[in-house]
Amino acid sequence: MASNSIGQVFRVTTFGESHGPVIGAVVDGCPAGLPLSVEAIQQDLNRRRPGQSALTSPRNEADRVQIVSGIFEGRTTGAPIALLLANEDIRSADYNHLQNTYRPSHADYTYETKYGLRDHRGGGRSSARATAALVAAGGVAKQLLATADIRIAAFVTQVGSESVSLPLATDPPQLDAWLAVSEANAIRCPDAEAADRMIALVEEARSAGDTLGGIITAVIDPCPPALGEPLFGKLQADLAHAMLCINAVHGFDYGSGFAGASRYGSEHNDVFFNDQGTIRTRTNYSGGIQGGITNGMPVYFRVAFKPVATLMQVQTSVDREGEPVTLEGRGRHDPCVLPRAVPIVEAAAAIVLADHLLRSRMARI
Amino acid sequence: MASNSIGQVFRVTTFGESHGPVIGAVVDGCPAGLPLSVEAIQQDLNRRRPGQSALTSPRNEADRVQIVSGIFEGRTTGAPIALLLANEDIRSADYNHLQNTYRPSHADYTYETKYGLRDHRGGGRSSARATAALVAAGGVAKQLLATADIRIAAFVTQVGSESVSLPLATDPPQLDAWLAVSEANAIRCPDAEAADRMIALVEEARSAGDTLGGIITAVIDPCPPALGEPLFGKLQADLAHAMLCINAVHGFDYGSGFAGASRYGSEHNDVFFNDQGTIRTRTNYSGGIQGGITNGMPVYFRVAFKPVATLMQVQTSVDREGEPVTLEGRGRHDPCVLPRAVPIVEAAAAIVLADHLLRSRMARI
Amino acid sequence: MASNSIGQVFRVTTFGESHGPVIGAVVDGCPAGLPLSVEAIQQDLNRRRPGQSALTSPRNEADRVQIVSGIFEGRTTGAPIALLLANEDIRSADYNHLQNTYRPSHADYTYETKYGLRDHRGGGRSSARATAALVAAGGVAKQLLATADIRIAAFVTQVGSESVSLPLATDPPQLDAWLAVSEANAIRCPDAEAADRMIALVEEARSAGDTLGGIITAVIDPCPPALGEPLFGKLQADLAHAMLCINAVHGFDYGSGFAGASRYGSEHNDVFFNDQGTIRTRTNYSGGIQGGITNGMPVYFRVAFKPVATLMQVQTSVDREGEPVTLEGRGRHDPCVLPRAVPIVEAAAAIVLADHLLRSRMARI
Amino acid sequence: MASNSIGQVFRVTTFGESHGPVIGAVVDGCPAGLPLSVEAIQQDLNRRRPGQSALTSPRNEADRVQIVSGIFEGRTTGAPIALLLANEDIRSADYNHLQNTYRPSHADYTYETKYGLRDHRGGGRSSARATAALVAAGGVAKQLLATADIRIAAFVTQVGSESVSLPLATDPPQLDAWLAVSEANAIRCPDAEAADRMIALVEEARSAGDTLGGIITAVIDPCPPALGEPLFGKLQADLAHAMLCINAVHGFDYGSGFAGASRYGSEHNDVFFNDQGTIRTRTNYSGGIQGGITNGMPVYFRVAFKPVATLMQVQTSVDREGEPVTLEGRGRHDPCVLPRAVPIVEAAAAIVLADHLLRSRMARI
Repeated sequence: MASNSIGQVFRVTTFGESHGPVIGAVVDGCPAGLPLSVEAIQQDLNRRRPGQSALTSPRNEADRVQIVSGIFEGRTTGAPIALLLANEDIRSADYNHLQNTYRPSHADYTYETKYGLRDHRGGGRSSARATAALVAAGGVAKQLLATADIRIAAFVTQVGSESVSLPLATDPPQLDAWLAVSEANAIRCPDAEAADRMIALVEEARSAGDTLGGIITAVIDPCPPALGEPLFGKLQADLAHAMLCINAVHGFDYGSGFAGASRYGSEHNDVFFNDQGTIRTRTNYSGGIQGGITNGMPVYFRVAFKPVATLMQVQTSVDREGEPVTLEGRGRHDPCVLPRAVPIVEAAAAIVLADHLLRSRMARI
Repeated sequence: MASNSIGQVFRVTTFGESHGPVIGAVVDGCPAGLPLSVEAIQQDLNRRRPGQSALTSPRNEADRVQIVSGIFEGRTTGAPIALLLANEDIRSADYNHLQNTYRPSHADYTYETKYGLRDHRGGGRSSARATAALVAAGGVAKQLLATADIRIAAFVTQVGSESVSLPLATDPPQLDAWLAVSEANAIRCPDAEAADRMIALVEEARSAGDTLGGIITAVIDPCPPALGEPLFGKLQADLAHAMLCINAVHGFDYGSGFAGASRYGSEHNDVFFNDQGTIRTRTNYSGGIQGGITNGMPVYFRVAFKPVATLMQVQTSVDREGEPVTLEGRGRHDPCVLPRAVPIVEAAAAIVLADHLLRSRMARI
Repeated sequence: MASNSIGQVFRVTTFGESHGPVIGAVVDGCPAGLPLSVEAIQQDLNRRRPGQSALTSPRNEADRVQIVSGIFEGRTTGAPIALLLANEDIRSADYNHLQNTYRPSHADYTYETKYGLRDHRGGGRSSARATAALVAAGGVAKQLLATADIRIAAFVTQVGSESVSLPLATDPPQLDAWLAVSEANAIRCPDAEAADRMIALVEEARSAGDTLGGIITAVIDPCPPALGEPLFGKLQADLAHAMLCINAVHGFDYGSGFAGASRYGSEHNDVFFNDQGTIRTRTNYSGGIQGGITNGMPVYFRVAFKPVATLMQVQTSVDREGEPVTLEGRGRHDPCVLPRAVPIVEAAAAIVLADHLLRSRMARI
Repeated sequence: MASNSIGQVFRVTTFGESHGPVIGAVVDGCPAGLPLSVEAIQQDLNRRRPGQSALTSPRNEADRVQIVSGIFEGRTTGAPIALLLANEDIRSADYNHLQNTYRPSHADYTYETKYGLRDHRGGGRSSARATAALVAAGGVAKQLLATADIRIAAFVTQVGSESVSLPLATDPPQLDAWLAVSEANAIRCPDAEAADRMIALVEEARSAGDTLGGIITAVIDPCPPALGEPLFGKLQADLAHAMLCINAVHGFDYGSGFAGASRYGSEHNDVFFNDQGTIRTRTNYSGGIQGGITNGMPVYFRVAFKPVATLMQVQTSVDREGEPVTLEGRGRHDPCVLPRAVPIVEAAAAIVLADHLLRSRMARI
């Protein structure tokens, strides 16, 4: 059934496969009157696109976004905004040998089992290529959020065995400082030294034909109070849903997260105090969300990515008939998707926040 | 806006507050012809209700479920199934002192900020009392799933600093053996020795007026292939959403989860093989889900709970006017919700699975 | 699949069968802070309930509504509002002879064909009894609309061959004057003389064991501009949907409606003019809606009801095995549902309007 | 809020404005494995496109549909199907004089009031141009329906004062015979003589710079039983909603419709009988739907269109400042949209039916 839309009132529908002529997104529910910068959307697409650094797949996608509806004289009209991205550097022949083979830890087997057939070229609809459409749609959401002074930023905080810790439970986020570092290195880590270690780790894995996973930490700051809807529209639940929709994501936590599970209530509770007229909490183990609703403190969460499944190594598997086969890695792939996933996480979060920003207008008579 | 429903085609809507006359759930979309055992639903409610062991709140709720629609001669008719639970042991006066106070790490402040007023009695709609309605609805889902040979079981695998490890990535689940242990101890841990340590830890925390969090691990086994819908109806995304809707949950991961983030692709990929005519994987780091769709292997995931926010200790906070106040713990509360949360996790998962079981009928012409 | 909810952001879910213990509605998405009068809801239920006049079924339902959630100290809290109505005067035995029989022009055959079984007692879920829950929910919607100065009133304008014409395309509605008449006669017609003729017609039909259909005309005045959403949330489309959900309704038109199909554009266009600073139209063939959005003029529409299918006459049909059977009318039924349907039409319209009133808050940044 | 999608499980989202570069539709939820003929979709677009006969607007749109996703080797894959249509013969300058003017009975005033700005070129999103995307999506739905032996056909049965009557309540539909006539004349009327009179009427209106409305009657035959979902997914309700979403539609009825309102129950009830093993009804005043669910008899309904609002005559109106203005008809417009609306009605109905065909798979365990 229809499952390619996300959001209730600010709703994004994406379409398109890795090796078709075009992918795209329809953003329905964006309020009218928003001045929309195509260039800002393009910048996020550039942060996601392959070929941007030595760490990423050399597939060459200019990823030039075209907006074909919903804008008049530079502003949104309230009509659906359709964004198109041409697929340019397609080499479908790269995938011919996979037509009957189920790649390990890919969606080949499950798509074929569910649908009875599949578009094997580049993974078809299951390809991470589809996240480009999400980033484009997220670019609209980000600009809507900016009108409410909401800012989202994401950072790579773990790659394989290398990690950095951001003291978000106890200190205010330093988004500008962190971004100055993270957007200046190829792995998008907010700690320059850790970035070097992570990059070295990725280079090493690539040389071995191997791949790495990692963790992205996202921060929403400033974030106004009163976003999120009990019981099944809790902000953290919609964020978790959005993050788990991203290819290769295996986990989500917010605030104290999994680490909070081992703490005592007496050390975990966030004490309210009156900060010169504003009610705030001294610590932020709640991650800015209480009862599913933001409390005005920074929102932050982590997203765990498994290592990329496509290896440049020999692997065994089975084909459609259940016969054993041997696979050799081919095509153009990333040894670690984390740096390219940063704008994807931001986009998915922005769509959730935009949805809840609009929903919050209906909370009171 | 309307946010108290979960599920697309098998949709559960809950209503009711902690200290109102009744709470309930409407299950809409359950297929006709399902023989429905009220007793089975009651058993899960009994596993969730307070007062069931020395570890839980002494609030006395019989939690007798009444089904008032959708059943005829013991079978579902296709009409919505409404389940009602009376609130019996209400002591609203226990909460009078909280009328103007924002309890730390509760929803008091956010509800009031969002809605401009709140029902302070027992947390109102934000109370974990609402999860009883979810368990009742989940009981319907479980019985639907049983017709497709789908079984869900959850276990407490961490309480504070005590934890057990279930080898789900490498070995077949032992649901019967684990349940035999977990349902026989007060903490619902599948390892009897760890259970003893966890219980001791909870008793100790209770004595100190303190509270504990922990982790629940859930397993779906057997689980048929082809459940889940790309791109935004991925099974793991809907599971994550459902889990993060549960009170006190701060994290979700599935398969290798957060631990997978530090592994290499070469050690993480699940190799397909032909197991006497059935295609299976040798390991199950994918957690039974690939590309958002089940592959026939067991599905498993973890849910992280923060420690309970209500302490039997003195805490500071502010009131509605921003004035500092001192809070003393009162009322009847759990030092650790994990054992009671086991049927809640199962119920939430069952609702998601029931929804996807029905959705999977529309995948092919 | 789940289909017992109406509305997107102000969403009403109903449940319950004719001969179960209780029917009810959950209103999810009502903004917080609305002072809610249970008595006002009760008044609409009284207008719908059987036994209110000589024209209606003598089934005796007090239809006392109980609100069990979502209200605190007389005001809505933003939590779902559950409304319960006990079924009191149940005589299920009246229906035993219908267990295997398909009544003509009822839902017996289709429910059984779709679901494989049915609750034959009083029509089960297909009974017009379910509209009581709709009226209760509509009572909440009406009170929300009143805060935006939106008023809905409905009138019986045709019963069988007797009809009256309201000059809504050319003149301002006279709601107060019309209601003064319509609510004072048993058929709820705004023209006292026509009411007498209609009542006589109904009495005559009842004596013959026969039944009558008719038309209800509804007016929304005042109605603010900017309600309704292109393309598939057009106000007239959502009104049509809501009306066609009411039992026995076979048609809907708005503005010039079916009559407009035979007119020329030159006589049908509504000319804008500046009415002392307000832009209005000289005529209102558009029925207050243009491009799916209200223009500030009164909204009006008609709803056609087929004659009641339950006759106090002998009829032929078939049973479950396809054998011919003879049916005698029994039970307690209305010869004409129009007067009782007036509050149902108002309630359904109110729910649609409440939904769009909230949605309209998201139109602009 | 997001309102440009129709359908719950087979969901169509459209986008694009009259004078943008492209319009399109995304069909999400079409089952995998459907062989899809682009040519069949194109044929319906050809029936809708302008310039097809002397009666229609001379705007020259080839309306060549391009499918850019969701198809692999000629069959649907389960992924969303995106259909694009270029806007070719755009003459935006034709609309410059309307920039500040509210055309009578158009959406100019309401769009501007709702959104604060509007794309005045050709009506922007409110243009009937958007129905081309609906027809394209409906072409997918029709092909899905064909696999279940469901056929939809629509006919012009009234234009202005000229009408024909189809005996659908009493006799089996003659779709082949009717289509042979209707698709062979410019007005798409199933009665050749009436067609001549209608065509003459349209020519006359056009000469006078005037326009005409009319009625389209649609038939679904064969139509299987068990489609439609109580209470708020009744088939007639979803059909009504879909029809009222079409530009210029002011009314919908099904079965006996408005005419049924003046009949007695004794003459209106459809008597069941056993037709050689199949349960059927002797008459079909129910229009093939009882209790919201199809009964296996032909479904039929009527759709009323108001006369086209764009006249080639001088009209008065006001501008944005409320100043009186005079409008002269310009641009390329139809004097009567009925013949072009026939495939639109079919497409909208097909989308509703496709949705319910899939939903019906979930009715029973």
